[in-house]
Amino acid sequence: MNTFGRKFRISIFGESHGTAIGIVIDGVQPGIALSIEDFQTDILRRKSGKKGTTPRIESDQPEILSGVYNGFTTGAPLAIIFHNQNTRSGDYKLFNDVPRPGHADYTASIKWLDFNDPRGGGHFSGRITLPVVAAGVVAKKMLGFNIGAQLIEVGGVSRAKALASRPEAALPDGGVEEKEELSDSQIWSDVLDEAIREQDSVGGIVECTVNGVPAGLGEPFFDSVEALVSHAIFSIPGVRGIEFGDGFESARMKGSVHNDPFDEIGSGNLNLHVNVRPSKNGAGGINGGITNGNPIVFRVAFKPTSSIGKAQKTFNFATGEMTELEIPGRHDACIALRTPVIVEAMTAIVLADLTRML
Amino acid sequence: MNTFGRKFRISIFGESHGTAIGIVIDGVQPGIALSIEDFQTDILRRKSGKKGTTPRIESDQPEILSGVYNGFTTGAPLAIIFHNQNTRSGDYKLFNDVPRPGHADYTASIKWLDFNDPRGGGHFSGRITLPVVAAGVVAKKMLGFNIGAQLIEVGGVSRAKALASRPEAALPDGGVEEKEELSDSQIWSDVLDEAIREQDSVGGIVECTVNGVPAGLGEPFFDSVEALVSHAIFSIPGVRGIEFGDGFESARMKGSVHNDPFDEIGSGNLNLHVNVRPSKNGAGGINGGITNGNPIVFRVAFKPTSSIGKAQKTFNFATGEMTELEIPGRHDACIALRTPVIVEAMTAIVLADLTRML
Amino acid sequence: MNTFGRKFRISIFGESHGTAIGIVIDGVQPGIALSIEDFQTDILRRKSGKKGTTPRIESDQPEILSGVYNGFTTGAPLAIIFHNQNTRSGDYKLFNDVPRPGHADYTASIKWLDFNDPRGGGHFSGRITLPVVAAGVVAKKMLGFNIGAQLIEVGGVSRAKALASRPEAALPDGGVEEKEELSDSQIWSDVLDEAIREQDSVGGIVECTVNGVPAGLGEPFFDSVEALVSHAIFSIPGVRGIEFGDGFESARMKGSVHNDPFDEIGSGNLNLHVNVRPSKNGAGGINGGITNGNPIVFRVAFKPTSSIGKAQKTFNFATGEMTELEIPGRHDACIALRTPVIVEAMTAIVLADLTRML
Amino acid sequence: MNTFGRKFRISIFGESHGTAIGIVIDGVQPGIALSIEDFQTDILRRKSGKKGTTPRIESDQPEILSGVYNGFTTGAPLAIIFHNQNTRSGDYKLFNDVPRPGHADYTASIKWLDFNDPRGGGHFSGRITLPVVAAGVVAKKMLGFNIGAQLIEVGGVSRAKALASRPEAALPDGGVEEKEELSDSQIWSDVLDEAIREQDSVGGIVECTVNGVPAGLGEPFFDSVEALVSHAIFSIPGVRGIEFGDGFESARMKGSVHNDPFDEIGSGNLNLHVNVRPSKNGAGGINGGITNGNPIVFRVAFKPTSSIGKAQKTFNFATGEMTELEIPGRHDACIALRTPVIVEAMTAIVLADLTRML
Repeated sequence: MNTFGRKFRISIFGESHGTAIGIVIDGVQPGIALSIEDFQTDILRRKSGKKGTTPRIESDQPEILSGVYNGFTTGAPLAIIFHNQNTRSGDYKLFNDVPRPGHADYTASIKWLDFNDPRGGGHFSGRITLPVVAAGVVAKKMLGFNIGAQLIEVGGVSRAKALASRPEAALPDGGVEEKEELSDSQIWSDVLDEAIREQDSVGGIVECTVNGVPAGLGEPFFDSVEALVSHAIFSIPGVRGIEFGDGFESARMKGSVHNDPFDEIGSGNLNLHVNVRPSKNGAGGINGGITNGNPIVFRVAFKPTSSIGKAQKTFNFATGEMTELEIPGRHDACIALRTPVIVEAMTAIVLADLTRML
Repeated sequence: MNTFGRKFRISIFGESHGTAIGIVIDGVQPGIALSIEDFQTDILRRKSGKKGTTPRIESDQPEILSGVYNGFTTGAPLAIIFHNQNTRSGDYKLFNDVPRPGHADYTASIKWLDFNDPRGGGHFSGRITLPVVAAGVVAKKMLGFNIGAQLIEVGGVSRAKALASRPEAALPDGGVEEKEELSDSQIWSDVLDEAIREQDSVGGIVECTVNGVPAGLGEPFFDSVEALVSHAIFSIPGVRGIEFGDGFESARMKGSVHNDPFDEIGSGNLNLHVNVRPSKNGAGGINGGITNGNPIVFRVAFKPTSSIGKAQKTFNFATGEMTELEIPGRHDACIALRTPVIVEAMTAIVLADLTRML
Repeated sequence: MNTFGRKFRISIFGESHGTAIGIVIDGVQPGIALSIEDFQTDILRRKSGKKGTTPRIESDQPEILSGVYNGFTTGAPLAIIFHNQNTRSGDYKLFNDVPRPGHADYTASIKWLDFNDPRGGGHFSGRITLPVVAAGVVAKKMLGFNIGAQLIEVGGVSRAKALASRPEAALPDGGVEEKEELSDSQIWSDVLDEAIREQDSVGGIVECTVNGVPAGLGEPFFDSVEALVSHAIFSIPGVRGIEFGDGFESARMKGSVHNDPFDEIGSGNLNLHVNVRPSKNGAGGINGGITNGNPIVFRVAFKPTSSIGKAQKTFNFATGEMTELEIPGRHDACIALRTPVIVEAMTAIVLADLTRML
Repeated sequence: MNTFGRKFRISIFGESHGTAIGIVIDGVQPGIALSIEDFQTDILRRKSGKKGTTPRIESDQPEILSGVYNGFTTGAPLAIIFHNQNTRSGDYKLFNDVPRPGHADYTASIKWLDFNDPRGGGHFSGRITLPVVAAGVVAKKMLGFNIGAQLIEVGGVSRAKALASRPEAALPDGGVEEKEELSDSQIWSDVLDEAIREQDSVGGIVECTVNGVPAGLGEPFFDSVEALVSHAIFSIPGVRGIEFGDGFESARMKGSVHNDPFDEIGSGNLNLHVNVRPSKNGAGGINGGITNGNPIVFRVAFKPTSSIGKAQKTFNFATGEMTELEIPGRHDACIALRTPVIVEAMTAIVLADLTRML
């Protein structure tokens, strides 16, 4: 239930305000150089603190309990934990009785009755994606593929449009490059300001591209690349949709437009497969569930953060009456800001498993 | 690789033009009345023959090899096969050398080398969804939920718009009801006619709704309802995207709009959960991966059929030269027409597994 | 529940007196030459008809439904079925009410209630091992290891002792070799004659040796070679015990006697691992769950056949009274006679899976 | 690879001399009272320190990282770790070059090359069974069955014979009861003294009995109770054999002797199944893979500890020459002394999984 993968297999555990959260990663190849430093970049990308993210800041320092010896993975399971520190559990007790709209408070109480740990969302918390990011770092090191995810839309405003509206755009030359250095929080600053001002939240869309993936990964049906990637991606809290290549738009295309005609991309190689490639990648790099050598491309829709300060109707199960709820505490106005690295991690985990299953 | 589920578990096999295709269904509850007749309605819904579907017509008669005794399931695995009859394998030999754009010909030849059975798409064929439909029938009988999928868009034209354009709409009274009796092929007749005329194909979008599903099915992460449903749905050939509830549109909503405020839907019941329900179902019936008692709602995008008569660029691996391909034979101009029942089947299979895992 | 393996995965189905029994084998490598003839030798070894086995003779002709094209495996799932023909279901109806001692009649009726198919033992029948033998044939072809199982004891009489007692032993020269040509039924003829005369049954012990298996297969804990082999072996009806290498006797040895000292078995090879090997193989070819390059050796105890003609006490659940039962019909006086090839098949299936998971 | 179970699922990790060893237990029912104290008895039973066990003494204090809230399990994964403290890694470095006979040093170096952590046996260490014992405690609390394992033989001397030879046996009255209070180390004191004096080791046999298990657990083939129990038991380092009920002896019995005739064990209950039971339990409580309501009974053979002080032949892979090895450090003269609680734990884990899968 909290396990994913066949040969590169992860098991997650932990609650937002418990002692520690963590992950066991089984099936790691022996001999991969691995140190605490390797995790810093990706963990930082997921971290909160910038505009639009919660002011709860955790140190997020991983501790490797097993599986590494003399700086290299051994082949035995890798266990990584993160101690929880900056917890304010008082904020959450209420939600056992008064479930927050859009949250798992209600369904958790049905599934696990009164025994669910409600503090900070407990095991349902997005914080559990932190160990997933750690597993993603390990998977990326095993793969060597170039996996890159970025926000392409926040609150309905595309990256291009948001960039164009930045005052820095007035810079006389090199403007575009400089703007690229802006953080996502800066690029969508106007959208975020409005949401924060209204004590509301916004969603976003992440696009992920994998370059360098070889042809031949995946299986025709239940282990198709799309099936496994979507399985992993929908395990990230807040995801509402996923589409590959031309995605939903493909349903409005003619076959002659959507199909990828094969094209020569080189010549002279005796292995003709090196010379030929589907040309326009409307399939997102996958045919019949199997990678075709093109980049894998997919987009993921994240809903607006459920926790908002604005008053919402809900039900008080203690009193049996309808009530209004203004959620106190520290929220992300846009959780999507922190998700690209999680999307990358889940993708890397799936591809590491598929690669090991070859 | 061709298996899905933990306790209600299916294993599919077969090739489009081989001896037979089939499925083994493990974990069926004993005591379910089951006869060949039970399969007819759903098999008929998947069948070709109407406008926009291939003229290859198979008898599609299931044969139950095991698991049923005296008209009831026994608890032992249910094996169901369908003999292939109406095969014209001559049509397909070419595609080993000249892969069809958008098809698995190319990736299959990379994965399984020259040993892949290319006839009719072999194991990659959409025909393998026929036994899945049979498993769906069994799952539906076990569940008793009301699972209904229907096409809501074909070739970019919504159901409402397509209906409005039918000449039958001119009928003076009762027009709408009568139109509802139209088959999908009739409703989108104009769209299909154009595609057929152009020797091209169109895609479509299917919406699936599950009523009567209890709250509490699913798990927070890797066995979330969305994760498992999407895994199964992306195992259907031709799927490019899936979204739950408000879906991609949720990424453009404010939290205060997307969140489902709880509402009283009744009163007087001592079990307050019966009286209360998230109100607008933007979450598609699922919070934190777990059903909340509302209907499950999701939409699936099907790409236009890959096989088209229209000329397409491709590569001839035998000659090492680019070429044009006009795919001969019998195609579906819109494969999406045949998919609602497959979407239902996959959904039923997932829910049967989740129910048995409770 | 009826599935085994991760990457080389089998799913079995069928009842003894149903339409057909069969198996789906997933994860078969593409390109393995495979025809109906390949199955004949092993199927014949499992077949009944000789002294001590049931006179029910089935044609046991496999039909390959999928996964083979032009004489080679394709990479897609291989489905093989055997039609049941020589069934006399009348023999079995009684056992729903009056369970046979030692049989699954009683536990099946608890698990699957009245829906269990009792005919010929239904899904619990040893006949379901026939498709397992077929899967073993495929696994053996993939592996190329030399897997050999033989009966070493029947009814408490060792092979050596039974051979010594044969009248043919009096032959003046070449006696031993000629005796080796005797079938197991002939070697233990006296033991079997006595059991048949008494309308009783006897058990036996099978020893299996795998030569040519490389070092490095298996995992330290739950996927240790012993764990997986024993899992598969205990899936054969009638198994009561398994032991590897020195087995139970090792519990009575000193460490200095049981341990395998390493020995040079060659020299000059730059890869020293080729020159060195644990010497006496008390570990049965496995250390820490992982093959060490020595032959894998284990023994399996089969209980005496449960079905006997001799009167036994049992309970009549229809009348609520104790009763005596003399089981009519056709039985194996020694089911163990037919099991060596099944033990080989299960072993091959495990090793094929471990090899594919490397 | 380090995971076991379908719905009650454990994942183990850690190395003997690493930071910590631990386990993640998924599928624990919510609402089970659980505290650190619950683990003490079973952990103590596994602990070393008595005669015949290693003088390395660890505090073996479990730390619960997740899954418990306010003293009850929540339904989320339970993560339990044990920090390693009393490690002397210097003892082990040699064994990378000079593998210890009977150990996994050799196979680990083949599988994981030079990256294997050799300290204290690394991930192959019997110490990894400590978290398994912890999982067993949780499983036992979920089940409420009475699972009891005890040593019945050490170094070839049965419990009865060892007891009879104790000087305390001379006590005039009540002698037997008092002797029952003796620890296993005391009962087999003579056997252990001899092994220690010779710097050698001895093995033993453990018998496990489960009372109170309901009829109907298990499946006919691959998930038969024997298959799953043996899978788990062979995951304990040092196991060489397992047998159920009459075990290997059944292979020497007639069917009329081995079969369990049904007997009335009560009367008057309308549910006749309550009144009837197979009488002599030669099947060890299992028919056709499914529990029959009798106690489950099986025996496990443990080999003598591999690590001995006595000189043994081995090969020095650094010098390429044969050598003699006297293993320094702290060993168990009889590892079997510490295993009954591990056998219980594995059994409980299997039964918890089967119970949750019902």
